[in-house]
Amino acid sequence: MKTRIGIYGYGNLGRGVELALSKTPDMEAAAIFTRRNPEAVKPVSSDVPVLPAQDVASYADQIDVMILCGGSAFDLPEQTPQLASLFHVVDSFDNHSRIPEHFATVDAAAKKAGKTAAISIGWDPGMFSLNRLLAASILPDGQDYTFWGRGVSQGHSDAVRRLDGVLDARQYTIPCEDALAAVRAGETPELTARQKHTREVFVVAAPDADQARIEREIVTMPAYFDAYDTTVHFISQEEMKRDHAGLPHGGFVIRSGRTGENNEHSQIIEYRLNLDSNPEFTASVLVAYARAVHRLAAENRSGCFTVFDIPPALLSPLPVEELRAKML
Amino acid sequence: MKTRIGIYGYGNLGRGVELALSKTPDMEAAAIFTRRNPEAVKPVSSDVPVLPAQDVASYADQIDVMILCGGSAFDLPEQTPQLASLFHVVDSFDNHSRIPEHFATVDAAAKKAGKTAAISIGWDPGMFSLNRLLAASILPDGQDYTFWGRGVSQGHSDAVRRLDGVLDARQYTIPCEDALAAVRAGETPELTARQKHTREVFVVAAPDADQARIEREIVTMPAYFDAYDTTVHFISQEEMKRDHAGLPHGGFVIRSGRTGENNEHSQIIEYRLNLDSNPEFTASVLVAYARAVHRLAAENRSGCFTVFDIPPALLSPLPVEELRAKML
Repeated sequence: MKTRIGIYGYGNLGRGVELALSKTPDMEAAAIFTRRNPEAVKPVSSDVPVLPAQDVASYADQIDVMILCGGSAFDLPEQTPQLASLFHVVDSFDNHSRIPEHFATVDAAAKKAGKTAAISIGWDPGMFSLNRLLAASILPDGQDYTFWGRGVSQGHSDAVRRLDGVLDARQYTIPCEDALAAVRAGETPELTARQKHTREVFVVAAPDADQARIEREIVTMPAYFDAYDTTVHFISQEEMKRDHAGLPHGGFVIRSGRTGENNEHSQIIEYRLNLDSNPEFTASVLVAYARAVHRLAAENRSGCFTVFDIPPALLSPLPVEELRAKML
Repeated sequence: MKTRIGIYGYGNLGRGVELALSKTPDMEAAAIFTRRNPEAVKPVSSDVPVLPAQDVASYADQIDVMILCGGSAFDLPEQTPQLASLFHVVDSFDNHSRIPEHFATVDAAAKKAGKTAAISIGWDPGMFSLNRLLAASILPDGQDYTFWGRGVSQGHSDAVRRLDGVLDARQYTIPCEDALAAVRAGETPELTARQKHTREVFVVAAPDADQARIEREIVTMPAYFDAYDTTVHFISQEEMKRDHAGLPHGGFVIRSGRTGENNEHSQIIEYRLNLDSNPEFTASVLVAYARAVHRLAAENRSGCFTVFDIPPALLSPLPVEELRAKML
């Protein structure tokens, strides 16, 4: 029997989870839970039932692992501990500074209910974090660099959309090639925010809006743009739809270390993602970790886990003997 | 008290382990064991005792984890099971096709003695294997590519050195830029050995040797060179010493996957190593996994482990709470 996965929340991420499950031999989308009117939600596959989120408790014996697909600002801090008292759960909580707090509440709820939870699963936090940990453990004498992009930042796009006279906006974060090249060459430079990334913004302005004023408000916006070199392009609604509909992202985690009697050897570890679809990739990571959560739960290992705690073999559908024979 | 690491075998790899231990806050080189005359072995640090390998059993209570630094062809198949009946052990066994067999003998010996072992630790097998597993688990609909180099292959260098009239030789494996670019672009090409790598050989020939014959024997050598495009350079002993004394290596593990309702999204995961010193990097990985073995042993988890089985947090000297707060 396939592992029955519940999808809690059906936006870009929930849809990505449904799609990712269609590629696994051992798991299936058993149900989608939504706070919207279920009849208004159309899953990719018409086979998957769409159910009201408020009834979720009555499906406790029909879902093996629940993947939470809500947002980190308001949804997950409430939902993950709540659902961890009913289900084994996986979330993609990505507010880095609040991870210890979120871990503590989820861990307490899961332990109390004898459930298994994995939080902050995705690529950053997630695969990038795992690579930071591995690389720093292998090369203790070294320096870490994380670059993001080229990709769409939803937070920065939203910040521009809130400006007066802006109808739509899309912000791309772009790693600086010079900085990347210096790091890859083992130079371990100290880099400011401005030296690591540039920002590029595409704006659809209202017909009567003052474009010079909008551009000024963007490039000087505190926290979001003022510490970066930002380029602003005004485009039409048609161009926005045609050229900027996707959600690409990615980035680089690089550890530049030194070994040798006189530190004479440069050793560079680089992990890179180049993603056409950020939500579909995050969803694919969530699904692999749902498999691991199901297995940890089968061993009665309750409480909260992160990518740091989970033996990698648990992510694969293949038996570990086959992994050793074919992938090691 | 620091974790006391034994180094069994003191060639390039053993020396790398000693150097890597000098960078860890929580582990130390407690002793070097050698089959040579101990007085003829000079460790980097004069503090580390050099002891005869034949006496190793009498140091069972003075070593927390033994790192085996012998070769995979003749040393490790014998030594790892033997030493796993006396010590917790880590080795870098790298004969991919014989890993299941090696795992079985080490697992049996370690379980019988209540010891913890980790085998095939390094970068391939090792970190490359881990990345193949993670990437394939996340992107089940995709294709794997492993490229090696630019780096020195000891096996190929040795094969050339055995030819008549060859005084010294160094072989570099070089990944083909065109193939790498195609894979990174998401094209998932089918690649032959010749399309993935080229080989470059530097040869010091005897003064009276027939260079044309040596070159012909190299480029047509079955298994080693005949399936590749190989360039041969004849150089002087001085040039060999000046330009080819290092042991650089590295490579790329790339997973090119597809997601989306119509597979419309390319998702690329790339892990890259660029190493000035292959043995020192392998040694650094061995040392990080020795930390994990020590911790697994403290939990009485006996038997054989690989990179697939070990929770990543065990590799770090930092407590997991700090890892979550700072690296996740």
